[in-house]
Amino acid sequence: MTTNKQVLLASRPSGWVKESDFRIVETPVPKPGDGQVLLKNIYLSLDPYMRGRMNETRSYAASVNLGDVMTGETIAEVVESKNPKFKAGDTVAAYVGWQQYAISDGTGLRPVDPRIVPVSAYLGAVGMPGVTAWYGLLKIGEPKADETVVVSAAAGAVGSVVGQIAKIQGCRVVGIAGGKQKCDYVTKELGFDACVDHRSEALMESLAEAAPKGIDVYFENVGGPVLDAVLARCNAFARIPVCGMIADYNATERYGVKNLISVVGNRLKLQGFIISDHSQIWPEALTQLAQWVREGKIKYRETVTEGLENAPKAFIGLFKGENFGKQLVKI
Amino acid sequence: MTTNKQVLLASRPSGWVKESDFRIVETPVPKPGDGQVLLKNIYLSLDPYMRGRMNETRSYAASVNLGDVMTGETIAEVVESKNPKFKAGDTVAAYVGWQQYAISDGTGLRPVDPRIVPVSAYLGAVGMPGVTAWYGLLKIGEPKADETVVVSAAAGAVGSVVGQIAKIQGCRVVGIAGGKQKCDYVTKELGFDACVDHRSEALMESLAEAAPKGIDVYFENVGGPVLDAVLARCNAFARIPVCGMIADYNATERYGVKNLISVVGNRLKLQGFIISDHSQIWPEALTQLAQWVREGKIKYRETVTEGLENAPKAFIGLFKGENFGKQLVKI
Repeated sequence: MTTNKQVLLASRPSGWVKESDFRIVETPVPKPGDGQVLLKNIYLSLDPYMRGRMNETRSYAASVNLGDVMTGETIAEVVESKNPKFKAGDTVAAYVGWQQYAISDGTGLRPVDPRIVPVSAYLGAVGMPGVTAWYGLLKIGEPKADETVVVSAAAGAVGSVVGQIAKIQGCRVVGIAGGKQKCDYVTKELGFDACVDHRSEALMESLAEAAPKGIDVYFENVGGPVLDAVLARCNAFARIPVCGMIADYNATERYGVKNLISVVGNRLKLQGFIISDHSQIWPEALTQLAQWVREGKIKYRETVTEGLENAPKAFIGLFKGENFGKQLVKI
Repeated sequence: MTTNKQVLLASRPSGWVKESDFRIVETPVPKPGDGQVLLKNIYLSLDPYMRGRMNETRSYAASVNLGDVMTGETIAEVVESKNPKFKAGDTVAAYVGWQQYAISDGTGLRPVDPRIVPVSAYLGAVGMPGVTAWYGLLKIGEPKADETVVVSAAAGAVGSVVGQIAKIQGCRVVGIAGGKQKCDYVTKELGFDACVDHRSEALMESLAEAAPKGIDVYFENVGGPVLDAVLARCNAFARIPVCGMIADYNATERYGVKNLISVVGNRLKLQGFIISDHSQIWPEALTQLAQWVREGKIKYRETVTEGLENAPKAFIGLFKGENFGKQLVKI
């Protein structure tokens, strides 16, 4: 515990992220001052939104500056505390980035209880991805029993929770995922009614078969041709919470969506959202998500990469669909 | 008054509508039965939505059958009444299609008062286009004072009212229209703050100049490259009521929209609507629109084509931007 390994943003990627866009350094472990705590990170969460933070162009959150530690959420242990609200040994969710150690004045630290669910779940189903699924599906998608809900990136950290909440609401749930293994997972293990492989050439036909009554809610994570296929199958008054468009994040030439005319004819609502705007709903959502996980109504899977030095590679893998469920780094 | 000239749908267009997709016939003037009225149409309204009714593919309303009279709203005079609610000489707005005479049992007839505004206005600013503007802008767009509102097809029947209502709300209003003459009209005559010619090659730059603080509400009538340019300039939490995408109506190969990723980053809401779904707001909207027209706060322009036999040509002109303001046919 003398050096602090950190992953810095070395250059702004154009198109696909490369490992060389990051730089790994070792710095002295910082010392907490009055009112501060020293955190030792246990797990780092890797999420698609981080790609936007690497750009200079305006995004919904400030860019990471070149040479700064990459931002990200972690599960951390308090190893030293000069803040009366925390004591050594506490476990917290923190937003302190891709590094082994960090100083915090306590702002934004969220105590987590390892006795309720495993700590890593606080970065997944009972963390930001879970709350994202909960808010987008329930508050924007507003699914009703017997409606058809479609979710893309269905085996991912957000999509897998979306589909399981929709099942709890009594909906028919169709996942869209990349490859047979992920499709099998969401239908056989998570209980979705059907899954469409977006790599299939007959995407439109497969979707029509999986959603014979049309689509009432589409939880959008990917964009691109999948969105076009869904737009062509939407029912009147369908709702489309737009959580992400991962297909575009690394694109230098973006896909052109052709079926937006469905927005008029079918009175669709597409609504983008970012979960950090909705801090007021986090406590309710987290409580409910934790309960569903404990009851076995929400299952999750994790891909855990060992070692902070492997974070860049694992991050790049996110955009190629190499992860299965929530992508974590064990630090 | 012995023959009834009618315009029938002769064939379903693929791509651009042609005059040969219509057939003009003369049939005997029908006789009203008990409870019915005979209407003599004075004005026929021509609207972009009618293009969808010519298709066989599912649209938000039933297709017109081949050989049937084209559907459309008219202003008509009651010439004979066997219905106690109407008497000869009454003026009504009716939905009886492209023909000189029609029978109605009174359902859906809306009495109009020529003393309040000229009767043709009941097909425009104080009719369906006006209510469309009112609902889409105020109920979906929800503009606040000092926000920037952009509207496409700004010189058209809907767009011109959208911009003027936005001015009444205290917004900065930017029109998008085709050509200098229409742009001059919306700025000099209707009082918009700026207008961008969508035929200009520097659409993005012109829009940036006209909306220096970004865009908070975009009332969408056209789709295509204009939508892409607007998406790139939207502020966080901008609202996009989607009334139409006229650029796509006659397209055999649709434009691909590339900037939808802005929906995520800027938490945009795009919402399609069709005004006939919202019959409960018509009375309030019509009352307010009539008042604004009488007060001179809403001005309008009409392109009146003489003779029902010229309706097909005028309708085709709508999609080429040949009309200026509300397109009517004087029957």
